[in-house]
Amino acid sequence: MQDLIHQHILPPLNNDTLSALTDGAELGQLDGQVVFTTDSFVVSPLRFPGGDIGRLAVCGTVNDLAMMAARPIALSLGMIIEEGLPLAMLDEVLDSIASAAAQAEVQIVTGDTKVIERRVGIADQTAAQTESESLPGSEENGLIINTAGIGLREVEIAPTTENIEPGDVIVINGHIAEHGLAVMSVRQGLEFTSTLRSDAAPLNSLIAATLAAGLCPKFLRDPTRGGLAGTLVDIAEATGQTIEVDEEAIPVSATARHAAELLGLDPLTVANEGKCVLVVAAEEVSPLLDCLRAHPLGRNSVAIGRVTEPATASVELITKAGGRRLLRRPYGEELPRIC
Amino acid sequence: MQDLIHQHILPPLNNDTLSALTDGAELGQLDGQVVFTTDSFVVSPLRFPGGDIGRLAVCGTVNDLAMMAARPIALSLGMIIEEGLPLAMLDEVLDSIASAAAQAEVQIVTGDTKVIERRVGIADQTAAQTESESLPGSEENGLIINTAGIGLREVEIAPTTENIEPGDVIVINGHIAEHGLAVMSVRQGLEFTSTLRSDAAPLNSLIAATLAAGLCPKFLRDPTRGGLAGTLVDIAEATGQTIEVDEEAIPVSATARHAAELLGLDPLTVANEGKCVLVVAAEEVSPLLDCLRAHPLGRNSVAIGRVTEPATASVELITKAGGRRLLRRPYGEELPRIC
Repeated sequence: MQDLIHQHILPPLNNDTLSALTDGAELGQLDGQVVFTTDSFVVSPLRFPGGDIGRLAVCGTVNDLAMMAARPIALSLGMIIEEGLPLAMLDEVLDSIASAAAQAEVQIVTGDTKVIERRVGIADQTAAQTESESLPGSEENGLIINTAGIGLREVEIAPTTENIEPGDVIVINGHIAEHGLAVMSVRQGLEFTSTLRSDAAPLNSLIAATLAAGLCPKFLRDPTRGGLAGTLVDIAEATGQTIEVDEEAIPVSATARHAAELLGLDPLTVANEGKCVLVVAAEEVSPLLDCLRAHPLGRNSVAIGRVTEPATASVELITKAGGRRLLRRPYGEELPRIC
Repeated sequence: MQDLIHQHILPPLNNDTLSALTDGAELGQLDGQVVFTTDSFVVSPLRFPGGDIGRLAVCGTVNDLAMMAARPIALSLGMIIEEGLPLAMLDEVLDSIASAAAQAEVQIVTGDTKVIERRVGIADQTAAQTESESLPGSEENGLIINTAGIGLREVEIAPTTENIEPGDVIVINGHIAEHGLAVMSVRQGLEFTSTLRSDAAPLNSLIAATLAAGLCPKFLRDPTRGGLAGTLVDIAEATGQTIEVDEEAIPVSATARHAAELLGLDPLTVANEGKCVLVVAAEEVSPLLDCLRAHPLGRNSVAIGRVTEPATASVELITKAGGRRLLRRPYGEELPRIC
């Protein structure tokens, strides 16, 4: 364990606070409104086009803070490693954690690592039964990551659903469903969708740019598990308002649409990682889109819907054909475990 | 998942910050030196005499903060639940988390829960091979918990090994090896040691009492994995000093000594959970012991050794027979996974 920490974990994460190896990290005095969050990651396979569990673990917690309009100050890293996980894989994940943390301009200041006995996963059992050694993902179980994060909120008023009212506009910062479809494609062995890449990215600089421009999103949410549909239903139910979204306006790439068809999934319910739903007052839409589009992670930002009356606590999709259908919160098989 | 959160997780942990179910918890302005820590828990069996994984998960992180002389302000709770874990067991663990948090006067303010596919554990495989359904602990896999914690340090100077110098005295707040032996006894089916109970406890009020009395421990450390020996070797190596401990002074109960003999373990290397090693200046020993002994968690506090010269970066045990032997950091089989 001493070797693991000193030779594999500390070097890539390289910072004095972590390297002190004390029971906790000294962060000094924090000036501002403190926000605290945590998330665990159990994705399989551990690596996929556009990212891996390490990048997910950093971006997920950074984005939870960003959605609270908070600047990430410090992250913790809890790793549960199964015996038998190749050290090369661990090193790769740690490099990825370091790289995502650098991109988000935040440090891993405290951590904990546990090594547990190797257990036979469902995928391994299936592989054994079919005498296949190459079931996608089966060889890559064995690592669970938890990250917790501390952030400082930079604006007076926290973005919450309570701010939302009729007339507000729903904006998204780019193409949906890329993360979930990239992971599911690898898992199902759909090689020809290999141009699909996870969109996992730290969104804090994008949110900071909108706040720095004096824009005040009323609400922010990263549409991860449950996808865009899940997030919109959450908002409608929390506010009691009606949300109307235009199918035609929702950005879905041709590759993603194709992969979703093959996998039998609705892009609206597939998990995103580097996306953000912003609810803004109508008069802020134009400057907000200008601001988002000037950022590498917001180039394809677009308004996709609005809060309308009368209030029905539901989400209506205006289809490309001009029809209307209610969006529901996905459940069961629509929710593969991918983040 | 919505049902799990609303019916099983939120009610016992009952607080407004957590129940808001936002991406993170709003903690407001924190006035003081902020300390941040994390720990993951993979103990098997999930419950044991004197505690369970929930109590461990709260106490472990509270104590990491307390060892930094920090008052715990907020905890996060990340749960990884295997499909098939009985809901009654989850409820029991959550009640235990709530009760330990109440004892430590801290709230679980943010959390994350993942349900993963059931995997066959090593213990389950063994049970299947031996056609036994009652292998201790085998039915109780299926829950991993991570807690992270934020604390505020209450004294100007952080306790660190850098403060330690020759003449300082080593104090412990009670009997050692109780946690590790309680867990190992259950695991090995040693029924007759059933009076052994885990000492898992939140030590923050004990540490706060010493600080409130104006006492300034130079260093604090909870001797968990690796036991008292591991902690003393850590201190000797970090400071380069020589630590001398009196075997006769180290409190070990007769039951613990008996269980350790049966299990082939040295009590000095067995994990503790509700114990704290304090290094103090010689002139503070007497008032410190008075203060610790006035607290329910410090009644059996005692001085067990001292920092001596010349500096050898090692720990010498003065045996009951008057001999001397070097204490080493335990490794391998001496370190069963119990916390």
